[in-house]
Amino acid sequence: MEQKKRTEIATLGQFGLIDRLTQGFERHHAATLVGVGDDAAAIAPKRGDAVLCTTDSFYEGVDFDLTYFPLKHLGYKVVTAGVSDILAMNGTPTQLTVSLGISSKLPVEALDDLYEGIRFACKEQQIDLVGGDTRASMTGLVITVTVLGRADKKRIVRRDGAQQHDLICITGNLGAAYLGLQLLEREKRVLADVAHPEPQFAGYEYLLEKYLKPRPRTDIVAALAEEQILPTAMIDLSDGLASDLMQLCRTSKCGARIYLERIPIARQSSALAEEMHLDPVVAALNGGEDYELLFTVPIAMQEQIMRLGLVDVIGHITPESTGCYLVTPDGSDIRLKAQGFVE
Amino acid sequence: MEQKKRTEIATLGQFGLIDRLTQGFERHHAATLVGVGDDAAAIAPKRGDAVLCTTDSFYEGVDFDLTYFPLKHLGYKVVTAGVSDILAMNGTPTQLTVSLGISSKLPVEALDDLYEGIRFACKEQQIDLVGGDTRASMTGLVITVTVLGRADKKRIVRRDGAQQHDLICITGNLGAAYLGLQLLEREKRVLADVAHPEPQFAGYEYLLEKYLKPRPRTDIVAALAEEQILPTAMIDLSDGLASDLMQLCRTSKCGARIYLERIPIARQSSALAEEMHLDPVVAALNGGEDYELLFTVPIAMQEQIMRLGLVDVIGHITPESTGCYLVTPDGSDIRLKAQGFVE
Repeated sequence: MEQKKRTEIATLGQFGLIDRLTQGFERHHAATLVGVGDDAAAIAPKRGDAVLCTTDSFYEGVDFDLTYFPLKHLGYKVVTAGVSDILAMNGTPTQLTVSLGISSKLPVEALDDLYEGIRFACKEQQIDLVGGDTRASMTGLVITVTVLGRADKKRIVRRDGAQQHDLICITGNLGAAYLGLQLLEREKRVLADVAHPEPQFAGYEYLLEKYLKPRPRTDIVAALAEEQILPTAMIDLSDGLASDLMQLCRTSKCGARIYLERIPIARQSSALAEEMHLDPVVAALNGGEDYELLFTVPIAMQEQIMRLGLVDVIGHITPESTGCYLVTPDGSDIRLKAQGFVE
Repeated sequence: MEQKKRTEIATLGQFGLIDRLTQGFERHHAATLVGVGDDAAAIAPKRGDAVLCTTDSFYEGVDFDLTYFPLKHLGYKVVTAGVSDILAMNGTPTQLTVSLGISSKLPVEALDDLYEGIRFACKEQQIDLVGGDTRASMTGLVITVTVLGRADKKRIVRRDGAQQHDLICITGNLGAAYLGLQLLEREKRVLADVAHPEPQFAGYEYLLEKYLKPRPRTDIVAALAEEQILPTAMIDLSDGLASDLMQLCRTSKCGARIYLERIPIARQSSALAEEMHLDPVVAALNGGEDYELLFTVPIAMQEQIMRLGLVDVIGHITPESTGCYLVTPDGSDIRLKAQGFVE
């Protein structure tokens, strides 16, 4: 097995560590006035632009398990999570800050890997790293990502604009990330006592990628702009379809009907669900972390939406009094429930 | 003893909890387009303004000890920490987001207290709460605060502008927060096995307030603007004078000489230091968390600075090659060292 070099964080000191981690980041935006290394970042927005801001934290043992989550992928994924929130406002990500809570158990090389993933995501998404700090954490790794973005003030899409009869559209397919996680957890359990574990992932590579290295749907926001489609409401699918749709409906003061057979589920998702005796629809409804986008458009835009070729229409908006329902192929209505929260 | 009501977080659910915590916040800025409850916050900056952004995390057991830190004060303090970073850019804080990592052990009432402090700080500082989330944390409480601010693009003050001969100015007095912490830790040790502890704080109320409820130096930024003083460099004193001055010098590529007898130390700080056999100068140099401002101005501004009546000139900037030194009253030079980092 590969023996990696282990450098103790204490040998570098705080400044040395930050210098090491933040090297090799390119600046993509002239609007970035002050980046890493000051009390705060400073950006100069363009006239007419709004500035968007979102913060997400990820806790070891709650949001990720380092026994199977490669740090490089984790770095990529935390950027995706923040970027996805900016996209859900119909915006473009521009800058980010990364704050780490780290235990001294972790060698510098582990943080190098994490930052390699962050750097890769920043390059791919054309985002400037503009700040962050590192602190001691008593327990596991905590990663906090703040992403700034920009949007034309008149094209910001909120959660609260869905109207009766609007179409409910989603990108990609759902449940894959959750099933990827189930696969990783299964192999961890099976191989817990094995000296040289060789987990079996063949045929499920797509599920692993959706969980470990999800790509933000930047393409959708670009396509909507190109087709001059302005959704009435939008949210990113991070908590699961049921919870996120209900959140959108709650904010928009409306109800929804979605159709079970229209929920897109990938072939690998169905296959693993069958193998593990799981219901792929439950995975889609409650799994979360798909980082796809859910949005609503007026019914008159149906043709334009279909032309995009990137989304599925899974249902429509109803009056608030009717609530949120899943309609099964046999015609029964199942009331949607949001899943739990603090364990 | 007062018996407080204990409501389990799980009974409210994530939306219910966020609704409860974020009620009663006023909106102070028309620029706040989208606040709490969407994927990201959106703000509309004024023409010519830069947007500032800073993120700080606070970990239970590392940054605060809930056995003696009232949650209401903690809420106030985490806002101060973020606001202080914005002030150090010569900016004005405008919006903030709060992300919590919480264990289910904590009752909702504890979070109510935390948010009461945050709400009080937001009202006092005229800051809009624009977002945040709550997640499960495996261990203690983690609070992450992102503060946005604005600054005239031409009046942003960075860390890197200090020039040779510039005066080194600081606000307030130093070491008080550290000594307040020492007092709290002492009483915790002494009273660890006492059934009805009655800690002795008489005569040291100021030190407790500096540690538990530090006020950001918003007045300084206003006074600098009024007197038309633009510092060449500025940093907030969160890590301790030695570390923060060295950071400013490192970024500005310069050295510094500061004079021991000019470092302002409060009477209560000297008194407690004597009682606890601590050196108040060491507390000032390495203590941190004072949230005062350190800035440099051209020597020609000495009179203007003195007229402010709010700052002390403690030394001056020297060439980079000479390093950073503390000059004692007997004329000896002591090289400054930054204190440690990850425990």
